[in-house]
Amino acid sequence: MTTWVPVPEGSDFPIENLPFGIVRARRELPRPAVRIGDHVVDLAALSRAGLLDVPAAAVLHHSALNPLMAAGLGPPIRRQVAALLSSTPEPGVEAALLPVDEVEVLLPIIVGDYVDFYSSLHHAENLGRMFRPDAEPLLPNWRHLPVAYHGRSGTVRVSGTDIVRPEGLVPDGEGVPRLVPSGALDIELEVGFVVGTAGTRIRPDDADAHVFGVVLLNDWSARDIQAFEYQPLGPNLAKSFATTISPWVVTLDALHPYLVAGPEQDPTPDPYLQMQRLWALDLHLEVELNGERISATGFRSMYWTFAQQLAHMTVNGATTSPGDLFGSGTVSGPSKSERGSFIELTWRGAEPLALADGSTRTFLLDGDTVTLRGWCGGDGPDRPRIGFGEARGTVSPAPTR
Amino acid sequence: MTTWVPVPEGSDFPIENLPFGIVRARRELPRPAVRIGDHVVDLAALSRAGLLDVPAAAVLHHSALNPLMAAGLGPPIRRQVAALLSSTPEPGVEAALLPVDEVEVLLPIIVGDYVDFYSSLHHAENLGRMFRPDAEPLLPNWRHLPVAYHGRSGTVRVSGTDIVRPEGLVPDGEGVPRLVPSGALDIELEVGFVVGTAGTRIRPDDADAHVFGVVLLNDWSARDIQAFEYQPLGPNLAKSFATTISPWVVTLDALHPYLVAGPEQDPTPDPYLQMQRLWALDLHLEVELNGERISATGFRSMYWTFAQQLAHMTVNGATTSPGDLFGSGTVSGPSKSERGSFIELTWRGAEPLALADGSTRTFLLDGDTVTLRGWCGGDGPDRPRIGFGEARGTVSPAPTR
Repeated sequence: MTTWVPVPEGSDFPIENLPFGIVRARRELPRPAVRIGDHVVDLAALSRAGLLDVPAAAVLHHSALNPLMAAGLGPPIRRQVAALLSSTPEPGVEAALLPVDEVEVLLPIIVGDYVDFYSSLHHAENLGRMFRPDAEPLLPNWRHLPVAYHGRSGTVRVSGTDIVRPEGLVPDGEGVPRLVPSGALDIELEVGFVVGTAGTRIRPDDADAHVFGVVLLNDWSARDIQAFEYQPLGPNLAKSFATTISPWVVTLDALHPYLVAGPEQDPTPDPYLQMQRLWALDLHLEVELNGERISATGFRSMYWTFAQQLAHMTVNGATTSPGDLFGSGTVSGPSKSERGSFIELTWRGAEPLALADGSTRTFLLDGDTVTLRGWCGGDGPDRPRIGFGEARGTVSPAPTR
Repeated sequence: MTTWVPVPEGSDFPIENLPFGIVRARRELPRPAVRIGDHVVDLAALSRAGLLDVPAAAVLHHSALNPLMAAGLGPPIRRQVAALLSSTPEPGVEAALLPVDEVEVLLPIIVGDYVDFYSSLHHAENLGRMFRPDAEPLLPNWRHLPVAYHGRSGTVRVSGTDIVRPEGLVPDGEGVPRLVPSGALDIELEVGFVVGTAGTRIRPDDADAHVFGVVLLNDWSARDIQAFEYQPLGPNLAKSFATTISPWVVTLDALHPYLVAGPEQDPTPDPYLQMQRLWALDLHLEVELNGERISATGFRSMYWTFAQQLAHMTVNGATTSPGDLFGSGTVSGPSKSERGSFIELTWRGAEPLALADGSTRTFLLDGDTVTLRGWCGGDGPDRPRIGFGEARGTVSPAPTR
C-alpha cells in the first residue's frame, strides 16, 4: 500500500500501521487521531468534512478512545483512513493532517482494570533463582496458569511523563523499617493489551473480538519496597506509583501478519487455555538507558499468549470492559542481554551494568531516562515495519520532606 | 433533629444519616438521591423546583456519584436536604420524595481503583495460624504497614446482585489442576471507603478531606482457587469475580459522632502513619446466612484505621481519585462468634457451622444468601442510629459447560 503523505524511511508508522491515539491541538479539546509517519489525522476534522462515515458525536468528541473501541469502530475507521491516505490527496484530508510536533499526545484510554501478568519463562526462572536459590525456580502453578495480579489503573501514565522516585518502608541496617526514597528503582519491559469490547468467559481463539490493540508498557518497580511489603498479598506500593505506556495503540489488524506460533507448552494446558489459532506476536523489543541500548529481546518466546491471558482473566466469570489493560509481564529472553529488568541484568546488583559513558548502574539514578521501543517486521518485502513508537520516562528525585 | 417524613422506628436512615445513592425511577435515567427512612429524595427534582443550590447539570444528571463527590458537593447538598426535610413540608419537596420500593437502587459509584486491605489483627492471626502453623502468625511487615493488594474494580456489584459460583483451577486428588466450580466459596465481612476528592501523599489527619463516605463490602473469595494461584503475586481469580457493596454511601459527616480511638499500635508506626485525631469507627457489624445471624463483631478494634490506609496508599506518590474504593480487610474480633469469614468460623472446614435449620456449612452452597449489616449508635439519647442498610448476595450455580 502507498500513501501520498510523506513518511520518513524506517518510520514506525507507515500506511500499514495507522495506530490510534488521543491528541490535543492548540486551543482544542483532546480527541481521537490516527498516526501516520510524522503526522496525525484529526478524525473529527475528517468527519466534519464529510469524509468519515462514523457517528462522530458518539465516539470522536471524547478525550479517550474508550467509546470508539466499545462501539467496535476501530477497524472501519482505520480502513476508511487508509483509503483516504492512499488515494489522491484532497483538501479535506490535507486539512485534517497535523504535524505530530504541533499537538500534545495524551494518554489514549481511560484505564478500567489493569492486570499485570508474569508470563515470561526466563523472567520467572531468573527471579525464582534469585529469591529462592535452594528451590525449583518455578512455583507449582506457573506452568498451569498465567499468574497475574491487579495493578493500579489510576497511575497509568503516557510516555514522557516524569517518574518521581517513590518512597516506602524499607528496613534499615538494624532491621527497623524506615520511610525512604527507593534505592532500587527498576523497570519492567512489557507489552500491554488494550481491551476494546466487553466480555466474560472468553475463549482464547476469540481474543481478537475483544482486544483492540497493543502498546509498550514499563511497569516501574521499587525492588526494596517490594521485598518488604509483598507477603502474603503481592506487590502494592512497589509498583502503584506509575506505569508508563506508549501513546499509539497499534491495532490487532495491523499486527495480524506477525501473529505466529508460540513455544510449546508442557504440560498441555487445561482446555480453557488451549488455542487453535496463532497468538504469539513476532515483536522485537529494546530498552534504552539514556540513549544506550541495554537490552534487546523477542516477544514471541513468551510462554503464555495474550489470548490465554484474556481467557484466564475471565474464566471465573469476571467481566472485562473497554479500556481494561493487561500487561504481558516482564519480557526476558534466555541470554543475559535479553533481560527486561535491571534486577535481572545486574543479577540483583551483583553484576553492575557498565555503560558507554564509563558509569555503572545497578538500579536507576535520578535523571536517568528509560525508553522502551518495539516493532514488528521492517526486514523484507511484504514485511512492513509496524512500530510502537516509545514508552519513555525520566526519573525525578523523591520529594523532600 | 426531627423530620416530617415518616421514618420507621429503628430505621437505618433517620434524618441524621441521609446517605447518598443512585436510583432509577420508572422511565427515568439513573441519578443521585438521598435516602431517608423508606423514601428517597430525588435531588434533580429538588433542583428543578428551585430548592437546591447546586450546579445541577454538572453533578445531578449523572448515573454515578463521582462528579458530585469530585466537586465537594456532598456536605452542602446534605445540609440543604436536612433543612428541607426538617422544616415545614412544601410541595416541591414532597414531589421529590419517592418510596424506595418504587425505584431501582443501583451501584452508587463508578469504581476507579479498588484496593483491599488486611487490617484486622485477629483475622491476620487466624489465617497465619491456619496456613503457617509452625511459624509466627503475623508476617514481619504486618505491624509496620497496612498490607493490601489491588482488586478488580470492574466487578464491584451492588447489593442484591446474584453471585455466580466461580470456576478456576484446583488440583484434583492426584494433584492435577482441573477447571472446576469452586468448592470453597467464602465471604469476607468488610467495610469499604469511597474516595471523593483526589489527592496524593495524604496525611492520616487529612483523611476526611478525601473520603466521601462508607459502605459495607463483601469480598467474596474462592479459597480453593486462591490456595493454588496466589503465590507469588497474591490473590487474583479467587476474588476478581465479584465484590458486593451496599448501595447507600454513608457520609463521614454523619459518622463523625462515632469516630473513636482505635487500639494501641505497637510498635509506634512510622511518622507518615501517625494520627492525632480519632479515626477508628464505632460500628457494629453482622453477617446473616439465609436470615440467621452467624457472626457479629465491632469495627473499632481494627488495627489500622482507614485514615492510615489512605495515607499508606498514597505515600509513594500514587494518586487517588473520586470513585476509588478501599476495603478494610476482613473484620474479625477475638472470639469465635466474631469471625468475618467461613474459613475462620469453621477453622478451614474442620469445625462446620451448625445452623438453626439443622443443616451445617463449611463453605457456601448454591442458593445461600449472605447479608451484611452494620450500624453505629441507636443505643441511647444523642446516639442516633446511623445504619448502612445491607450488602446482600445469593449464590447461583456455576455455568454448565
